[in-house]
Amino acid sequence: MNRKMQWLRNQLLSLNLQGMIVTNPVNIKYLTNIQAEGTLLVTRKENIFITDGRYVEDVHNTLTLFDEIVVYDIRGLTKEDFENFFMFCENVGFEENHVTYAKYKEYMHKYKINSLVETENMIEKQRMIKDEEEIENIKEACKTTDECFEYIVNYIKPGMTEKQIARQIDDYYYKHAEGIAFETIVASGENSSKPHAIPSDRKIQDIDVITIDMGCKVNGYCSDMTRTIFVGEVPNYVKPVYDLVLKNQEQVLKDMKENSNTKLISKMVDNDFRLNNYDLIHALGHGIGLDVHEGPVLSINSENFLKERMVVTNEPGIYIAGRFGVRIEDTVLIRKGACEPLTKSTKKYVVI
Amino acid sequence: MNRKMQWLRNQLLSLNLQGMIVTNPVNIKYLTNIQAEGTLLVTRKENIFITDGRYVEDVHNTLTLFDEIVVYDIRGLTKEDFENFFMFCENVGFEENHVTYAKYKEYMHKYKINSLVETENMIEKQRMIKDEEEIENIKEACKTTDECFEYIVNYIKPGMTEKQIARQIDDYYYKHAEGIAFETIVASGENSSKPHAIPSDRKIQDIDVITIDMGCKVNGYCSDMTRTIFVGEVPNYVKPVYDLVLKNQEQVLKDMKENSNTKLISKMVDNDFRLNNYDLIHALGHGIGLDVHEGPVLSINSENFLKERMVVTNEPGIYIAGRFGVRIEDTVLIRKGACEPLTKSTKKYVVI
Repeated sequence: MNRKMQWLRNQLLSLNLQGMIVTNPVNIKYLTNIQAEGTLLVTRKENIFITDGRYVEDVHNTLTLFDEIVVYDIRGLTKEDFENFFMFCENVGFEENHVTYAKYKEYMHKYKINSLVETENMIEKQRMIKDEEEIENIKEACKTTDECFEYIVNYIKPGMTEKQIARQIDDYYYKHAEGIAFETIVASGENSSKPHAIPSDRKIQDIDVITIDMGCKVNGYCSDMTRTIFVGEVPNYVKPVYDLVLKNQEQVLKDMKENSNTKLISKMVDNDFRLNNYDLIHALGHGIGLDVHEGPVLSINSENFLKERMVVTNEPGIYIAGRFGVRIEDTVLIRKGACEPLTKSTKKYVVI
Repeated sequence: MNRKMQWLRNQLLSLNLQGMIVTNPVNIKYLTNIQAEGTLLVTRKENIFITDGRYVEDVHNTLTLFDEIVVYDIRGLTKEDFENFFMFCENVGFEENHVTYAKYKEYMHKYKINSLVETENMIEKQRMIKDEEEIENIKEACKTTDECFEYIVNYIKPGMTEKQIARQIDDYYYKHAEGIAFETIVASGENSSKPHAIPSDRKIQDIDVITIDMGCKVNGYCSDMTRTIFVGEVPNYVKPVYDLVLKNQEQVLKDMKENSNTKLISKMVDNDFRLNNYDLIHALGHGIGLDVHEGPVLSINSENFLKERMVVTNEPGIYIAGRFGVRIEDTVLIRKGACEPLTKSTKKYVVI
């Protein structure tokens, strides 16, 4: 059995759970490497993956004997089969943050379970700490993102649309990686004041501000980087905002290490923004891995402590409605006494 | 207030619900046209959309006074605000098929609700019947898909990879529509035996079978079409399978109309496949609209009756593991005495 499934079985044992239903597809990919619609059951004796005709062949190709996972086509299973999976199980775990209320009721009935027990993001919490293989994948995705940034800075010309630039980034990622980790953001001029702008038909002007938020996937693992760049010149009214965002982003890099308090770090950025009459309107960052957004959250609303081998983003931003916005973001690996930025593109003024 | 929100309010009245929490973003887009993370509350007196700083500006731009929707930034709301939204409400509806078990418990507490009531996919069921504007959008998406198919048939040459072809389709969709409705499938040779194959680096051979499953979005509405095409020649061992799939696909088109029984139609295809020692391993089709997969399901496992102005897919397929597969799919509009295929690309043998 692989190391991650073994870890899960040990966890269940220590929580007095005799089985678990895993439904979050990202958790299933994390534990088994399977990428298919279906449900993973950890029962007393077996690991079972229930899928359907569309995926059976593919799942069989992914797994080896070593995985010790039995694959069933749901069409071959009877009512009794479902009732037998968790026979003699007192407590069965489930993912209360993924399973809908309707599915929860269905599972109780279908599997004839007495007690479905909340597992409090147990697998997600484990996913926050990356192993060496996971770190290598994220590093690779970050490297490709740096290369893509260099490519795109040379590609952008006034007259191109935001959409066109975004598509070019996507093409690069499909060519040099597994594709995008999230919808690429290219937001220019007044559009850059929207943190989650969708690329539009707006054309790049001779003098312009462009915020680009981009990331790709390598073996399922994500990168995430944002830069605000300039066309023609850096307007005088943008400079102080850019410098303020950058100063804070760099201060956060200094503060991020094992045991840092994420609430405190976020609070310091928010305070500095407020001193200058701005506002940190979104979280300072988030964990990243198989999901582009995963634990921990770095914000003023919740207290978390960074741990070695977490990978998180550091992305302060200031947005002036209807005018412009600046955001600077790196993907960062946490180490004991310091952190290591994995995205390394320049943060000096980039003028095209 | 717009017609769809008015419909929802009437529904709530007839179900003795004094309010509802709408969380499914597709339902929110359907009801309000808002595309942003957030929660829609229908309270006794008001319609409320709660979002955060990233989306406030954009939501305000989407809405007009006529919509009668109040937008709140979640950061400005207190514990008491949440408790007051549903004050004096006996029963409040929620989406039990979308809300997680954890959120269900959180809502009870946060909104101080006595009775959260399941609404049994009420909004999804309404979404199955399309109005004229929705039909126009889907027609437009289908037309673009036909055009893209013609384009791609001329583009494909032996030596190209599946990935390269898929990216070309995606590019076409981003240029001529809002982009893809789902991950484009280009599956050639033995890969075509996997119904949900992911485009690979396999190169198209001089003699080859290629299944292409493609769809785009127009104003949020999806199209979905599959064709299996040939390079060089139609191999003799594929012909009988292709002909059998096509015969059934065309028979289904004749059978689809108001009040058709979807279970019966699917059963007839399955029976005909079995007579020939094959098997219908997936559903025959699905509703399509703002979601590429929505109600109703067309399969042998559940009985549904088609209604006028439903839009559904008709997609029988046969898959021979490790060798090849054939699937033929159209998006279809249901009318009273017949149906209207909205995707119109040829289903004769296409040989490149």
